[in-house]
Amino acid sequence: MATKHLFLLPGDGIGPEAMAEVKKLIAVMNDRLGSGFATDEGLVGGCAYDAHGAAISDADMEKAMAADAVLFGAVGGPKWDAVPYEVRPEAGLLRLRKDMELFANLRPAICYPALAASSSLKQEVVEGLDILIVRELTGGVYFGEPKQIIDLGNGQKRGIDTQVYDTFEIERISGVAFELARTRKNHVTSMEKRNVMKSGVLWNEVVTQTHKARYSDVKLDHMLADAGGMQLVRWPMQFDVIVTDNLFGDMLSDIAAMLTGSIGMLPSASLGAPDVKTKKRKALYEPVHGSAPDIAGKGIANPIAMIASFAMCLRYSFGMVDEADRVEGAIAAVLDAGLRTKDIMSDGMTEVGTVEMGDAIIAKF
Amino acid sequence: MATKHLFLLPGDGIGPEAMAEVKKLIAVMNDRLGSGFATDEGLVGGCAYDAHGAAISDADMEKAMAADAVLFGAVGGPKWDAVPYEVRPEAGLLRLRKDMELFANLRPAICYPALAASSSLKQEVVEGLDILIVRELTGGVYFGEPKQIIDLGNGQKRGIDTQVYDTFEIERISGVAFELARTRKNHVTSMEKRNVMKSGVLWNEVVTQTHKARYSDVKLDHMLADAGGMQLVRWPMQFDVIVTDNLFGDMLSDIAAMLTGSIGMLPSASLGAPDVKTKKRKALYEPVHGSAPDIAGKGIANPIAMIASFAMCLRYSFGMVDEADRVEGAIAAVLDAGLRTKDIMSDGMTEVGTVEMGDAIIAKF
Ligand SMILES: CC(C)[C@H](C(=O)O)[C@@H](O)C(=O)O
Ligand SMILES: CC(C)[C@H](C(=O)O)[C@@H](O)C(=O)O
Repeated sequence: MATKHLFLLPGDGIGPEAMAEVKKLIAVMNDRLGSGFATDEGLVGGCAYDAHGAAISDADMEKAMAADAVLFGAVGGPKWDAVPYEVRPEAGLLRLRKDMELFANLRPAICYPALAASSSLKQEVVEGLDILIVRELTGGVYFGEPKQIIDLGNGQKRGIDTQVYDTFEIERISGVAFELARTRKNHVTSMEKRNVMKSGVLWNEVVTQTHKARYSDVKLDHMLADAGGMQLVRWPMQFDVIVTDNLFGDMLSDIAAMLTGSIGMLPSASLGAPDVKTKKRKALYEPVHGSAPDIAGKGIANPIAMIASFAMCLRYSFGMVDEADRVEGAIAAVLDAGLRTKDIMSDGMTEVGTVEMGDAIIAKF
Repeated sequence: MATKHLFLLPGDGIGPEAMAEVKKLIAVMNDRLGSGFATDEGLVGGCAYDAHGAAISDADMEKAMAADAVLFGAVGGPKWDAVPYEVRPEAGLLRLRKDMELFANLRPAICYPALAASSSLKQEVVEGLDILIVRELTGGVYFGEPKQIIDLGNGQKRGIDTQVYDTFEIERISGVAFELARTRKNHVTSMEKRNVMKSGVLWNEVVTQTHKARYSDVKLDHMLADAGGMQLVRWPMQFDVIVTDNLFGDMLSDIAAMLTGSIGMLPSASLGAPDVKTKKRKALYEPVHGSAPDIAGKGIANPIAMIASFAMCLRYSFGMVDEADRVEGAIAAVLDAGLRTKDIMSDGMTEVGTVEMGDAIIAKF
């Protein structure tokens, strides 16, 4: 079996603590199952800026490009609030997404039965929730040019960002959404603001055409993004797969994540296109949560989203479906047994730290 | 007392039904209190397109510009889904906002005690909720140029929208937010995506400067818009006034509206700058809900948001604070008495239609 090359980018804040638990799991899989993972590690975000003056070094970018998969922790913190825009911590993540061409961001919002009660939504509204948000990740207002601040004189400045989408970008992301829907409840909802944005008009048109040409067996709905946000809060169970652009996806996936009761639980996968010859796709896996600088270093961060991101990596990058199921099963089992990190703690449960949570999941694996 | 000129634009779908209840209230106020309202009426949205081939005629635009205040119902419906982009129903509303320079959109999200149970959020999370979203309404990606679809050949098109903000636009909208905060809990949260957007960087900078120069007595927080959306769902009571741009405001105000249990309840005001001489400001008042074509003409639409929009009109355009309080009190009293339209119906309450709800509110006025 060929060695599986993982490149780890723990980043800032709670990133390294959460990643440490994944490293333990990788070691166990290598020892017990001979899974053949080789890991290398780099810097991204504020720590990379401190070391190299850039949010990710060219050397680490090369390693990320060469790896079979990248595991990413989190970036940012108040320490770097005042660094120049071009080298801010987030620039490292954005460069990874862009240079690796990770256009498809998969964000499942799953409500673990054991946690349904901790949502701010009524239990009956979120229990059993299982949505997949497919977010376009390399286009839109995140990368369009011009993107600049112009000095107009007289104390006036002008801030400009550009939302741009081409047909092929919308086609390929909606293809991913339709394919995934076929493995689920066969229902895609596409969201944009076609009543205000020309990119939304094109988005709507291309999704409709792609559906008609190749995926007419899948149920397709269109919703305006503002109405979609509202419907997510009102009755999230109506959705199966949601496909949307980079900026709407950023907002909507965070809202969907919050419905589930804890953003500390949710993983994501960012995938490139399959290589024409090898069929392999570049991939990066990261928790939906951020670097949480306020609790960093205290040993209380929830490592579940990071571990669940590794489970997605097993599934999507290595086809290790059994192992992925086992990791996800171990997470559910530990929650059922009543273990909770501080962010998801509730009456009658047992509060544990990051390391104990990681150990408990590995013990159930 | 000078005549108060109201220009009514009921629009499409449930707009006319909801507006009819406001007309009755206006007649009662003229008769009983001698309030001196003169009303004129025009067409906007799909009905204007059917009549004139435009989403609002120039003649009606002139009347809107000349009125003391505009009352707007709702626009759009499947009938006009295929009309050209330039004359789609929403274009009428966008032209009104732009030509009248209504840069400040005030969207209160108030949870009526009688309705707290009908929210999809837990009652304790939303009971007593009182947030004001101040949305910039004449700038950003809604109006920035270029805004177009380019044909690239080879079956490829490119959709482009441009997000633009100038210093003065951010300054004036944040001024509105700070002023309003002083009449409330004195707390403003500004939301943008400065980690990705240059307009967000400028937004953050200008809000910070405006605060420092003129409103340092008000508590100011900054939040990334995605995190803000999440926090709205997690713990909305942490907010007092939220100030944000046109597109984020569109999404966030809809989500905030949904928290309250019914979007059929919520009014909004769109205000221009006070005239240097007369101090009067152009204004348009509209419910947050849309045209709801599926229930139009059935006599079951909830007229409360439209009536509450008229209450905002009394307050902001005519300084009729007592009368505004009385209208809002009548709405609360009718809800306390157990009357409900279909959209907010729950066990043990009395279901009524649009007309009965309007009559009941007028009876309590
Ligand atoms: C960190 C930031 C640049 C990023 C984004 O806006 O995409 C984050 O919010 C996310 O959703 O992954
Ligand atoms: C109808 C539409 C153009 C409008 C908007 O996007 O602003 C609506 O959603 C609103 O929020 O008033």
